[in-house]
Amino acid sequence: MPAPWRLFIEWINSGEGCFREIKKIVRAGATEHQDYMVAVLEGLGKSLIINGKLQSSLADEAWYHEALVHPTLLSHPCPRRVLIIGGGEGATLREVLRHECVEEAVMVDIDKELVDIAIRELSEWHQGSFMDKRARLIFMDGRKYLEEKEASYDAIILDLIDPEGPATLLYTLEFYRLVKRSLQRGGVMVTQATSPVLTPQIFRTIRNTLLKVFRNVVPYITYVRGYNGLWGFIFASDTYSPLSLDSKELGERIRNRIKGSLSFYDAVTHAWMFSLPKPIRDMLDEDKETIATDEKPLTMPS
Amino acid sequence: MPAPWRLFIEWINSGEGCFREIKKIVRAGATEHQDYMVAVLEGLGKSLIINGKLQSSLADEAWYHEALVHPTLLSHPCPRRVLIIGGGEGATLREVLRHECVEEAVMVDIDKELVDIAIRELSEWHQGSFMDKRARLIFMDGRKYLEEKEASYDAIILDLIDPEGPATLLYTLEFYRLVKRSLQRGGVMVTQATSPVLTPQIFRTIRNTLLKVFRNVVPYITYVRGYNGLWGFIFASDTYSPLSLDSKELGERIRNRIKGSLSFYDAVTHAWMFSLPKPIRDMLDEDKETIATDEKPLTMPS
Amino acid sequence: MPAPWRLFIEWINSGEGCFREIKKIVRAGATEHQDYMVAVLEGLGKSLIINGKLQSSLADEAWYHEALVHPTLLSHPCPRRVLIIGGGEGATLREVLRHECVEEAVMVDIDKELVDIAIRELSEWHQGSFMDKRARLIFMDGRKYLEEKEASYDAIILDLIDPEGPATLLYTLEFYRLVKRSLQRGGVMVTQATSPVLTPQIFRTIRNTLLKVFRNVVPYITYVRGYNGLWGFIFASDTYSPLSLDSKELGERIRNRIKGSLSFYDAVTHAWMFSLPKPIRDMLDEDKETIATDEKPLTMPS
Amino acid sequence: MPAPWRLFIEWINSGEGCFREIKKIVRAGATEHQDYMVAVLEGLGKSLIINGKLQSSLADEAWYHEALVHPTLLSHPCPRRVLIIGGGEGATLREVLRHECVEEAVMVDIDKELVDIAIRELSEWHQGSFMDKRARLIFMDGRKYLEEKEASYDAIILDLIDPEGPATLLYTLEFYRLVKRSLQRGGVMVTQATSPVLTPQIFRTIRNTLLKVFRNVVPYITYVRGYNGLWGFIFASDTYSPLSLDSKELGERIRNRIKGSLSFYDAVTHAWMFSLPKPIRDMLDEDKETIATDEKPLTMPS
Repeated sequence: MPAPWRLFIEWINSGEGCFREIKKIVRAGATEHQDYMVAVLEGLGKSLIINGKLQSSLADEAWYHEALVHPTLLSHPCPRRVLIIGGGEGATLREVLRHECVEEAVMVDIDKELVDIAIRELSEWHQGSFMDKRARLIFMDGRKYLEEKEASYDAIILDLIDPEGPATLLYTLEFYRLVKRSLQRGGVMVTQATSPVLTPQIFRTIRNTLLKVFRNVVPYITYVRGYNGLWGFIFASDTYSPLSLDSKELGERIRNRIKGSLSFYDAVTHAWMFSLPKPIRDMLDEDKETIATDEKPLTMPS
Repeated sequence: MPAPWRLFIEWINSGEGCFREIKKIVRAGATEHQDYMVAVLEGLGKSLIINGKLQSSLADEAWYHEALVHPTLLSHPCPRRVLIIGGGEGATLREVLRHECVEEAVMVDIDKELVDIAIRELSEWHQGSFMDKRARLIFMDGRKYLEEKEASYDAIILDLIDPEGPATLLYTLEFYRLVKRSLQRGGVMVTQATSPVLTPQIFRTIRNTLLKVFRNVVPYITYVRGYNGLWGFIFASDTYSPLSLDSKELGERIRNRIKGSLSFYDAVTHAWMFSLPKPIRDMLDEDKETIATDEKPLTMPS
Repeated sequence: MPAPWRLFIEWINSGEGCFREIKKIVRAGATEHQDYMVAVLEGLGKSLIINGKLQSSLADEAWYHEALVHPTLLSHPCPRRVLIIGGGEGATLREVLRHECVEEAVMVDIDKELVDIAIRELSEWHQGSFMDKRARLIFMDGRKYLEEKEASYDAIILDLIDPEGPATLLYTLEFYRLVKRSLQRGGVMVTQATSPVLTPQIFRTIRNTLLKVFRNVVPYITYVRGYNGLWGFIFASDTYSPLSLDSKELGERIRNRIKGSLSFYDAVTHAWMFSLPKPIRDMLDEDKETIATDEKPLTMPS
Repeated sequence: MPAPWRLFIEWINSGEGCFREIKKIVRAGATEHQDYMVAVLEGLGKSLIINGKLQSSLADEAWYHEALVHPTLLSHPCPRRVLIIGGGEGATLREVLRHECVEEAVMVDIDKELVDIAIRELSEWHQGSFMDKRARLIFMDGRKYLEEKEASYDAIILDLIDPEGPATLLYTLEFYRLVKRSLQRGGVMVTQATSPVLTPQIFRTIRNTLLKVFRNVVPYITYVRGYNGLWGFIFASDTYSPLSLDSKELGERIRNRIKGSLSFYDAVTHAWMFSLPKPIRDMLDEDKETIATDEKPLTMPS
């Protein structure tokens, strides 16, 4: 029978979701921190799922990882030291290391066991980045890392799971202040920010919270098939902004600073990501006050 | 139990799809031509479903209808006579009638019974447009209409169901030649064109086929939650192009020519729709030859 | 595409359930008391669904209604006055009226609007029973009826929805005492009792509760495809028992007392229903104490 | 979110099926012959799935394996040599070896790799049976085995996957003739026979086909939650019949010949299995002619 007999379901809310046939299970289990499954999904190809939520798929991981990394690093004149929090698959690290300015890329992930699995099973994602001399891996809670370390970065990239459980504390006012403290003068940061259409209040609240901490806060979007909709990021900095790069300047920076050929990002894609459709702008304009704090963090709808 | 007990499923292919709880059935049945259901769906609100495929939802119909109509009508200096093929809900007609230039809007739909249902049950969509003095409804096959009538239009808008069954003949070379024959000099047309990410070959083949008939052929995209992904349109004309309007000119035309306030479309949204992400441009560049003809029409994957 | 696009889902628990394609919606809506849908389902045919739970299907309603009615009425020497609580479709009434002894059949259902819908839309179920001179319909809460009326019956048949919401009060010790008070000497009763395999504790607790009130309490089972498993009933009486009828006596009573031909019930089916498989007997033996009271009623797992 | 994110679906037909949450994947992969998954399913516990179809679950494997084995072995005065075809989990072997008469139990399964997996991962099923001195494992096609070997058995137990693909040839007239040739005088056989309610024509055709080969052919049923309905078997022999054992004789044979305590089977369960409900008897009576042959084998609906 051609009908699928094993499904992966991504719930959007309690009455809506998308399903994909699990065509092959590469590996499944649980680490100390989370459940994981590496599987081949219909429509998406090989995919990593954590705690029942799709993290990334071979078919379109570039729509997420290139969108996350390049606008932020290119908005900075020359980011030498970059910090990634999260990003277990190694694809964010891979994109960071393409930038010739980068001299050191520190990746802090809480789950050593999962990164070990990624090293073995997700080579299409990291493409050996973990072996790059400029890369340094640290296994600890990202927030704790910022609290304890004195290090200071040109760019900080928050490649996080959605704000649920302990991860909610990586989306609060207090956390963003820590991020700011860990940035050099002129530093830039970006965070994944859930979907502006599926969970608009979450997206907006992250924007609002960053507005309390940084001067330039720029929401932008991409599309990820495996996330079942438009997806959002928020850039923040006191100094720079991806909006101030005109198309010519941006093209030059891409050519001069990024090694290898990109499959998703270029100046036209940049225009697409930063020209938000009116309903999203209107939604963002509706409320600029609600923020997330340690005491009152975000909660995803369920 | 909070779990949904009635689901509407939109299949993307045989192993992938999205589901939404059917919260209320407003009306369901079959006309001579097709099965229909008007229902309130989780996440989308009141929706029209035809032959098991979602046509439009209150929650985001503007992302589709405004995207379909305005770039094309605004690219023309002043469209007086407009033809809509399909568009049973009346929302495309509604957007067309906002344009002050329009003196006559002819809507040709094959299914009188369904339009009668729309008139009664979908007033949020048509908002009385069917009663506008400039509107004229004709119930017949759209292709037959073009074959038989001598009329000539400034703009033709193809608001069609996906190319399946008899509708495949509204996506062929021969049909587009009929469309061209029915346009005035300087005429413009646009067609819905399925999803550039979910059914990229279909989207590309429609573009290719129009390239055989028109000089300016411009693919562009929006996002429709209920279609579970980015969605595509193709504009075509021998004379005009939405790409040649700069942001200032576009803003003026919107202000001067469109009555009422739009919820989706403006100059920034226009930039978003016409700045295609690189993977879509690359996909379009891969093949410019495959076309659809009456003898070898499109077939949707199943 | 042959894949189903509208599904009815019957959840067994929060991670298990069965789905059937909704092939046609005959009618759907809400009464003052409950949501309903009459629809044609794959595998089951025309079906009645209340509050998201399948009540009965043309394909196998006889496996439920004949199983509910005949063992109880035949265990009594000659039931003249019969009370049905619930049973909106009219099929329980239909089976009761087959018994030539029956002089009066009172059906008490809380939902007049739903019975009116049944009269119009479910004629395959009631087959005109509501028009039988011996039938009397009363629209009120079944428990209130027993509390207020002085009437006394030879048999009481509880054709109820599962113990959820207000219906839990039709499965308690206090309610069964009311039932007993409303029975003539020698009276018999039966209740639907959920599934002995899917919700064994519920089934057992109903049995236990009846054991506190009646001398002879006999659990028995059938199978209902639309309920996705074996289904249970509990017979109770101080005087009679379906177990004391031997096969010959039972055959004679069927022949002599029931008009028309049955599609499910006969002496062999009776043996099947009353010979419980060992795991069900073992489960019933594990606990004879837990009972349901008004203060501590049953709760279905969710 | 409590909603299930990984589902196993057992399709009954193209518009009907049941789903269970995959709570844990113990092991999944493919042998030379088939795909397999050992997983913990909601409602069923640890389960073996082959080619997308549930084979057996800890929660109720006794309802299948005890039902398959004991009526047949007990109908024979003393089965010394028993052949099992299929039965990879080892649970059928386990039940056969309980019988003290049995001196040799030969199990022929086509898939050595799967049996090796069963030995490691399904010890709750086989409980070490593969190590019993009386057991002999042979890895080859069951039909080929019967064609080539001269051996002769007192009982043959066909513990097969449903008649799909190559397995259809284990349900034909020609195959049953081979089975008969391989039985001693007085030999007995039994086959699993799909569901009498979900695929009644398949069940009936297996019965009909056996009627062409054996004098006593006895259909009987059990219920398997994981198969989503009543399930059927057909016993066949020229000499004996489980119907000729009265309850007392049966009880004695169970006590005298079966070691250990059974969780499903006893004399009352036997009565339940062999008292077919009327609709199944009526269905069986409707057609006694259609049979399955090598040329025209069974086909499961899809």
